[in-house]
Amino acid sequence: MPRLTRADFERLDADDPLAPFRDRFTLPAGVIYLDGNSLGALPKSVPDRVHAMLTKEWGEHLIGGWLKDGWMVKPLELGDRLATLVGAGPGEVAVVDTTSVNLFKMLSAALAMRPDRRVILSNAENFPTDLYMAQGLIAQLGGRHALRIVAEHEIAGAIDKDTAVVMLTETNFKTGAVFDMAEISAAAHAAGALTLWDLAHSAGAFPVDLNGCNADFAVGCSYKYLNAGPGGPAWLFVAERHQKAAHQPLTGWLGHASPFDFALEYQPANGIRRHVCSSPGVIGLVAFEAALDVMLDADMAELRRKSVALCDLFINLVEQECGDAGARLISPRDAGLTAPWRRGSQVSFAHPDGYGIVQALIARGVVGDFRDPDVMRFGFAPLYQRYTDVWDAVAAMRAVLDAGEHRAEQYRVRAAVT
Amino acid sequence: MPRLTRADFERLDADDPLAPFRDRFTLPAGVIYLDGNSLGALPKSVPDRVHAMLTKEWGEHLIGGWLKDGWMVKPLELGDRLATLVGAGPGEVAVVDTTSVNLFKMLSAALAMRPDRRVILSNAENFPTDLYMAQGLIAQLGGRHALRIVAEHEIAGAIDKDTAVVMLTETNFKTGAVFDMAEISAAAHAAGALTLWDLAHSAGAFPVDLNGCNADFAVGCSYKYLNAGPGGPAWLFVAERHQKAAHQPLTGWLGHASPFDFALEYQPANGIRRHVCSSPGVIGLVAFEAALDVMLDADMAELRRKSVALCDLFINLVEQECGDAGARLISPRDAGLTAPWRRGSQVSFAHPDGYGIVQALIARGVVGDFRDPDVMRFGFAPLYQRYTDVWDAVAAMRAVLDAGEHRAEQYRVRAAVT
Repeated sequence: MPRLTRADFERLDADDPLAPFRDRFTLPAGVIYLDGNSLGALPKSVPDRVHAMLTKEWGEHLIGGWLKDGWMVKPLELGDRLATLVGAGPGEVAVVDTTSVNLFKMLSAALAMRPDRRVILSNAENFPTDLYMAQGLIAQLGGRHALRIVAEHEIAGAIDKDTAVVMLTETNFKTGAVFDMAEISAAAHAAGALTLWDLAHSAGAFPVDLNGCNADFAVGCSYKYLNAGPGGPAWLFVAERHQKAAHQPLTGWLGHASPFDFALEYQPANGIRRHVCSSPGVIGLVAFEAALDVMLDADMAELRRKSVALCDLFINLVEQECGDAGARLISPRDAGLTAPWRRGSQVSFAHPDGYGIVQALIARGVVGDFRDPDVMRFGFAPLYQRYTDVWDAVAAMRAVLDAGEHRAEQYRVRAAVT
Repeated sequence: MPRLTRADFERLDADDPLAPFRDRFTLPAGVIYLDGNSLGALPKSVPDRVHAMLTKEWGEHLIGGWLKDGWMVKPLELGDRLATLVGAGPGEVAVVDTTSVNLFKMLSAALAMRPDRRVILSNAENFPTDLYMAQGLIAQLGGRHALRIVAEHEIAGAIDKDTAVVMLTETNFKTGAVFDMAEISAAAHAAGALTLWDLAHSAGAFPVDLNGCNADFAVGCSYKYLNAGPGGPAWLFVAERHQKAAHQPLTGWLGHASPFDFALEYQPANGIRRHVCSSPGVIGLVAFEAALDVMLDADMAELRRKSVALCDLFINLVEQECGDAGARLISPRDAGLTAPWRRGSQVSFAHPDGYGIVQALIARGVVGDFRDPDVMRFGFAPLYQRYTDVWDAVAAMRAVLDAGEHRAEQYRVRAAVT
């Protein structure tokens, strides 16, 4: 492979069909932001859209906004638009609550659909909150279920006739490794089990095909690759074929068949609306809506191509420029250019000084993040990332290493935010 | 009683110590808004505060905002500020999720603390979603519990040794009648039961004294009298004496004792934080924070005095001006000037043509709302209501009745939004 130079990256930027999208985001000067996998950047349209909702809708229409401005139907309307991004159909997605709360709902529904089976199967590398939610649900159900945690590579082989549901985060938050959703769904179904996918690090990062993979349930957040802002509204997916059978315990009035009848007995709505519990948080939904508009203007296949190119180039360049530093690639080297995907839109290296390196990079304006025990994580959001960002980030890493900045005293105490 | 004239109301406005607060809200010209009990009006500071959060915090600090801008601790910080408004102490309130989801959590915790008791006691006049949430929880727990629904006036007498928790909305959403929180809490405790209060129509409407009344659990919303915007973040209260024993099933990572350790096993945080589940929705929290600043500047005793005056005057004036129309007061006539409160900050009349009257009033810019089967509901938010609004609203009602506007064809099909 010929040695890469900055000119190669400048040429790639010049030829990038997605390059104009960068202008639709606010990015602080002097910062190379490689943490969009944790919190996406601010789409420029969001402040104006939110301001208009506040002043023109709430301010002028007051209570009338629920109908006049469509606030009440936003969870389903936004769900239908989001569905196109994750391979779901109309009426299969609702935007509502938080990822963890939605996971609780979907897990409850799945367990109730497999009453003779005991096991929720997951993996040790899953994002811990998913495991915690399963533990909370199991305790609530009186302990007759069990959470079985195996290693990532053991999942497919661990599905058996006692497995009620296979609960996985499709993209490993530390390494970026992606499960083969179609293969695991098929294995689960062959054993009579259901699947529940957390797409926090998948939706907006690469093409997700829930129905093509025969997924049963899914949840996801909006604030990583979907750029809806910190703690933005989450979403859930129930495959059409399960919608009659899927019941969950958070039976709030908006999930009622006739919410405005104010009847005393709960009757679930048909379809996905039964999983919407409460009056929606409109301000957050409007921010998400504006952010989603940007994402939906992009071609997902093009986005995937760029994502793979950015990540591949980052790996090659770290090895070319910093190969002597002992950083060990822990992301899959082969991203998968066609499905099944093997790597999401992030690259992680393990390094004994990982914490210090990441902090020293942040001090230089190159924002990645650190995960215990030694993981340096760099996310690439193709909508606003430039190819030259890859070059400049690695140049900064070289400079950090050369100057020993990562060994500074202040990096001995660790703190992290997902 | 001397006949009231508009001059009386003008004088009351001129003497109103709370009058300056009206300028801190955006209210559309030509509208008399008597529906703040459903959706509070927009505080002028909210759009700017939200805009600053979006552009200065998210836009400039990106992921750093979680620590730098205190996003992560907002649920507890805001909870401590809100606590002062509802008679709770520091560390007893968290702002999180939705009212219904919080009700589910608190109800779960209460049932688990009374394992030998079967009954959730509530009333038929409760806001239906609270009953639905209880039904969903009971189904999830395998049906060994029961929801017992009695009439409002039968509650105190219905508490017995099988009652695990008395679950009440303190202020009746239709009539504005207020339970005596201290009395019912005492009756519940005497029988060994717990209390769970929904304060949706209480917080910000009149002085609430959770600890003074010895309440056990409470939940509430932010978008009625607290003016945080449509579907704004909700909150929950756990009395300090129960915090060690209270466990709920939505055990997300932010409720973990050490969220950033990313351990595989959930360990609940000490204190109120164990009831915070997910990364908080920051945009909605910032709107609430700005709205709460306005409310906390007001003296609650003064606010209650004005609320009672507005409501009393409205009742008197409807009877004086529209007494021939057959509207029947269904709110308590006596508000209670000292605790226990008997009436919240709304006045409801029943009338066979109630739907048409409310719609015709809305067409004239007087916004109240209608509740089945025949309830005309008028909320008075003392922070932005003028005394002359009372006069002008009743004058509009007289005009509607005189012209027969409420009998127009288009009001034969009903629609309502809470």
